[in-house]
Amino acid sequence: MKIGFIGTGVMGRSMAHHLLDADYQLNVYNRTKEKADSLVEKGAVWKDSPAEIATSSDLIFTIVGYPEDVEEVYFGEDGIFQNLTANKIVVDMTTSIPALAQKISEKAREKGAYALDAPVSGGDIGAKEGRLTVMVGGEKETFEKVRPIVENFSSELRFFGPAGSGQHTKMVNQIMVAGTMTGMIEMFAYAQKAGLNLEEVVKTVSGGAAQNRSLDNYGSRIIKEDYSPGFFVKHFVKDLKIALNESKAMNLELPATQQAFELYKTLEDKGHGDEGTQALIKLWWS
Amino acid sequence: MKIGFIGTGVMGRSMAHHLLDADYQLNVYNRTKEKADSLVEKGAVWKDSPAEIATSSDLIFTIVGYPEDVEEVYFGEDGIFQNLTANKIVVDMTTSIPALAQKISEKAREKGAYALDAPVSGGDIGAKEGRLTVMVGGEKETFEKVRPIVENFSSELRFFGPAGSGQHTKMVNQIMVAGTMTGMIEMFAYAQKAGLNLEEVVKTVSGGAAQNRSLDNYGSRIIKEDYSPGFFVKHFVKDLKIALNESKAMNLELPATQQAFELYKTLEDKGHGDEGTQALIKLWWS
Repeated sequence: MKIGFIGTGVMGRSMAHHLLDADYQLNVYNRTKEKADSLVEKGAVWKDSPAEIATSSDLIFTIVGYPEDVEEVYFGEDGIFQNLTANKIVVDMTTSIPALAQKISEKAREKGAYALDAPVSGGDIGAKEGRLTVMVGGEKETFEKVRPIVENFSSELRFFGPAGSGQHTKMVNQIMVAGTMTGMIEMFAYAQKAGLNLEEVVKTVSGGAAQNRSLDNYGSRIIKEDYSPGFFVKHFVKDLKIALNESKAMNLELPATQQAFELYKTLEDKGHGDEGTQALIKLWWS
Repeated sequence: MKIGFIGTGVMGRSMAHHLLDADYQLNVYNRTKEKADSLVEKGAVWKDSPAEIATSSDLIFTIVGYPEDVEEVYFGEDGIFQNLTANKIVVDMTTSIPALAQKISEKAREKGAYALDAPVSGGDIGAKEGRLTVMVGGEKETFEKVRPIVENFSSELRFFGPAGSGQHTKMVNQIMVAGTMTGMIEMFAYAQKAGLNLEEVVKTVSGGAAQNRSLDNYGSRIIKEDYSPGFFVKHFVKDLKIALNESKAMNLELPATQQAFELYKTLEDKGHGDEGTQALIKLWWS
């Protein structure tokens, strides 16, 4: 089986390397060609467009930046659907809009092909170590077919239901993270104003009811004022915007998530979109 | 050394039992006498007021409900300060106002006595198992004196600075928990509306960046619609109110914590104050 891989940024590149390491034949495409160099050196075959990837591959993974990029890669002039034929499988791993996942699924079905939405969580380190969490929507049979391949870069792979369910689950994850991030940042803002020793505070708080992974991952970085990105502010803003739009469509109010979105949007508007999400503390410490 | 214990509710009673188990001589007082029965049966001596506790004890622990109760227990007509004499030590473990901790500390100093503020975290289970987190403010020397005694019910005991610092640290803890609780509740609200399997969602989300102790503790209870209290809504409202008042006094805005407070206040106003904090989901699922 030939695998196509579209989107070889920080996340995609690591995932594609795991597939090469497992001896799969790989066709690759990326908007910025140089970001695929290390894969081509290892034996992947460069293709000049998503359409050519579709022609030359049986199973196609995509992981790009924004829903607009997903639209372009699938439905654009040189997009996947130009050349996708029956029985092929497409798997979009971009964090994107559930309705777009449904649209891709329907278009694939028209062509006798199959589609999954399979956004990931775990960041650059999870991708590098091959232990991403993957949340899948689509048809169960298709999921079972791609499972052994995805397991090359995932340690937690789970099926959630029809097309769009993977994206919905990723939104759920981001809503939870919005809570841990805003709580943690306001915690630091208060602790510093109250004159407390921040290292000591983190040690105490981490041991009890307030423990959370955001604090584990970012607590010491914030104390060192290290704002290098594990996860970009601009991507978190995108994700929360999708979550809130979806909520609105479901007649659901999420005031705490809305508040988190507004804080992160303010941070992005101030020019911090390319920093890590822990940079939210800059709204207080600037 | 004779120890006085004022406040034998769910938390205080377990803590006092650990002191009796360690063979300390204990004098006890509680507003509702019956709640001290199990301690008296085990050898504790009942006293009729905080003032009598002060007369008969060298070291006095207090853990009551609200800052008003702390005021009454220390400064009331039959309060501790009526009878507190030089060299005695008072330790308030109620989650209360930092300024009140400072006022108690000053009054103690006037009398040649010593005071610590030492609020706890870890809930009824932590108290029962003797592994509470204790956050201490006051004088370091006094802290060192009471440390071996507190260690009978604490596994994480830390000193944070002058009077009020223990309370400030507890506020920091509650600000963090406000984030994990609101994030988790909105996560469940979204997941259910999106038609996802909640058990599967919790399994996936718990394994990655969104992991947190609130989800570990309350996730399965929420799915079972079990709203029995680990920590009361009414006490969380009190704590967040203190945190926000303190923030305002420090010229600090905490919009996410403010949002959490408003949600919990709404829940309390609807009559759910005596349920557990996971009952916040009732604002969506009622």
